Amino acid sequence: MALVNEHFLKLPNNYLFADIAKKVNVFKVTHPKNKLISLGIGDVTQPLCPAVVDAMHKAVDEMAVKESFRGYGPEQGYDFLREAILKNDFRPRGIHLDIDEVFVNDGAKSDTGNFQELIRWDNSIGVTDPIYPVYIDSNVMIGRAGVLQEGKWSNVVYMPCTAENNFTPQIPEQQHVDVIYLCYPNNPTGTVISREELKKWVNYALKNDILIFYDAAYQAYITDPDIPHSIYEIRGAKKCAIEFRSFSKTAGFTGVRCGYTIVPKEVTAATLNGERISLNHLWNRRQCTKFNGTSYISQKAAEATYSPEGKEQVRGTVDYYMQNAAKMRTTLAKLGFQVYGGINAPYIWMKTPEGMDSWHFFDELLYGANVVCTPGVGFGPSGEGYVRFTAFGSHESTAEALRRIENWK
Amino acid sequence: MALVNEHFLKLPNNYLFADIAKKVNVFKVTHPKNKLISLGIGDVTQPLCPAVVDAMHKAVDEMAVKESFRGYGPEQGYDFLREAILKNDFRPRGIHLDIDEVFVNDGAKSDTGNFQELIRWDNSIGVTDPIYPVYIDSNVMIGRAGVLQEGKWSNVVYMPCTAENNFTPQIPEQQHVDVIYLCYPNNPTGTVISREELKKWVNYALKNDILIFYDAAYQAYITDPDIPHSIYEIRGAKKCAIEFRSFSKTAGFTGVRCGYTIVPKEVTAATLNGERISLNHLWNRRQCTKFNGTSYISQKAAEATYSPEGKEQVRGTVDYYMQNAAKMRTTLAKLGFQVYGGINAPYIWMKTPEGMDSWHFFDELLYGANVVCTPGVGFGPSGEGYVRFTAFGSHESTAEALRRIENWK
Repeated sequence: MALVNEHFLKLPNNYLFADIAKKVNVFKVTHPKNKLISLGIGDVTQPLCPAVVDAMHKAVDEMAVKESFRGYGPEQGYDFLREAILKNDFRPRGIHLDIDEVFVNDGAKSDTGNFQELIRWDNSIGVTDPIYPVYIDSNVMIGRAGVLQEGKWSNVVYMPCTAENNFTPQIPEQQHVDVIYLCYPNNPTGTVISREELKKWVNYALKNDILIFYDAAYQAYITDPDIPHSIYEIRGAKKCAIEFRSFSKTAGFTGVRCGYTIVPKEVTAATLNGERISLNHLWNRRQCTKFNGTSYISQKAAEATYSPEGKEQVRGTVDYYMQNAAKMRTTLAKLGFQVYGGINAPYIWMKTPEGMDSWHFFDELLYGANVVCTPGVGFGPSGEGYVRFTAFGSHESTAEALRRIENWK
Repeated sequence: MALVNEHFLKLPNNYLFADIAKKVNVFKVTHPKNKLISLGIGDVTQPLCPAVVDAMHKAVDEMAVKESFRGYGPEQGYDFLREAILKNDFRPRGIHLDIDEVFVNDGAKSDTGNFQELIRWDNSIGVTDPIYPVYIDSNVMIGRAGVLQEGKWSNVVYMPCTAENNFTPQIPEQQHVDVIYLCYPNNPTGTVISREELKKWVNYALKNDILIFYDAAYQAYITDPDIPHSIYEIRGAKKCAIEFRSFSKTAGFTGVRCGYTIVPKEVTAATLNGERISLNHLWNRRQCTKFNGTSYISQKAAEATYSPEGKEQVRGTVDYYMQNAAKMRTTLAKLGFQVYGGINAPYIWMKTPEGMDSWHFFDELLYGANVVCTPGVGFGPSGEGYVRFTAFGSHESTAEALRRIENWK
């Protein structure tokens, strides 16, 4: 008799973005004439840049001719892309990685969800709170997170990030943790981590034999030269950290699907007998077994983001979104809201007025201003009393949303 | 302290296609002047058909313009593709599925590897032997397969398929099994299952509350009208079977990455309390958490295989490969080899002469004829004494390989 993996049943039925969609649909049905503007889901809106489009057309043409047709590519990604990644994203920052420490994938969500397969099911995890839901949910599915009690998972250590602590998570000295998830620039708060603070985490990980799963999907939005783009800018990180990167937010690839994961060969986890096992080797085995490489066309597209024109064009789109972020920050602050993020990240994290709960504010904004945000509590208990706005809209719709909020407030 | 998932360490270090590559490299270094022909790995060689190429160019152009740009698509795939799948692959065979029973993915390997996440770690699995290695290896990684003893995993029930039983697996009446993996047309043997035989499996699954994971990646190669293309052609299969499909071998998408999985809503697995849980709902949750949809360009490419021109062109490529298969069958049989498959599948399964073991024959063929095959034992213990040839080469290289084998024999 086939038995179900009951860990899946522990997940609450409601899912943040599905719940939002439901509420939005109700609004649309009851207010057919009101046009909503969504600053909710973190999806890009600007088209692919010309360098990427050219590269994709060329790749399609290659696939149309026998002589240049490509079948299965390497599960780890093509060397042309892995080399471009090393040359552009790491070497200029003094980070030296081997090509076989780069694993190209179909987007960072897959790998941030799958990487936990490499560690024992009963290892405990620590997360900053609020957090991107995939980190916890993927651990729930394998039984690692325990059970949900009053909005928290029993085997997860939460490190609150709120205005009170300036969104700086405290190292959980008193609690047992084996793996820490960090995301910087942060989704959802839009805040960043200083080199000094990141050093503390790396040293803590090295001292306590902890792994850091570092999500740097938003690094392209960093404007402050003192903020690290990669955890490997910190000495010793190559011994304890895995880094997840994405072209989704860098180059508008949410529909193209390409990202990559860095798994340094020095990163190890222990067997019960104390033997050290390289995670690079294990991840390679995992990918060869359960993944068959990223679309060749998507990989050529990703490569094109590193050409001189590609870089300039991609930078242009990032700047475009950051102009939204700046405008949102200024306008919302002027209206008396407390806003965070939006300087080195495409997210604005805003405190709801008068201690209103996140969903309540979401409803007020939806019905009052016809603008969609994301309720902060959907990202974890410490997100209660906050909402997230994204800077990924067009200039026009962002300006219009702000006008509506001004009129409504 | 981060502990490793020790189940990964149970996997033998050698991996079939890596071992072949190593031997091939040694040959190339020692025989720089001899040009090898590979009939080993099952990768296609013919370019994408014009209908697909056109659709991809159009999709790229859509992504280049703000008005038609697409960001995140549905994790389950776009409805235009899911609808085309239902309309073309199922309804003409009298199979009625709902659109939300279709999950588009980045290739069947991912889902055949990942789907086991939905069932309890201690469920036991049954496999035909020889077998596509992903089925077992993905179960090893989660601890479900037990330990490797003399070439067999302790918690896996093997159902031998050899010339002696006409490659017809026997239902394991005496052994406890919760999930059965079936692949038809079969990789690696190239053999098929009759409607009558498949009925037996479905009835056995229904009677014993067993799940069937049915891999139909090669269904486009079926020429005999009596052979089922889908397990859902069998009454009751919608209650017990998941079906995996791929565009890789149908339309040459090994580098494009697109496939799909059918998860009927009626398929359930039990909790320990006997509650029935719909796997459709669970798989949807899994995909939404750990997958972010397939490239829009790849999905438009897949849709194009269902246009009138697309269908005809794809059929043309399949026929092209099947001409290779026919030629291989005839020539090898004429040379006195015992050959199987190759009539409803792009694989030829050949008995080695005089009981030679698979790797020994591989070496002989490599050094004697400069032709690469795949040793059958790499697919499981019952593959010993066989080798696999693929029909995915060009007509020219296949003919040349056969000439070399003729001269060598």
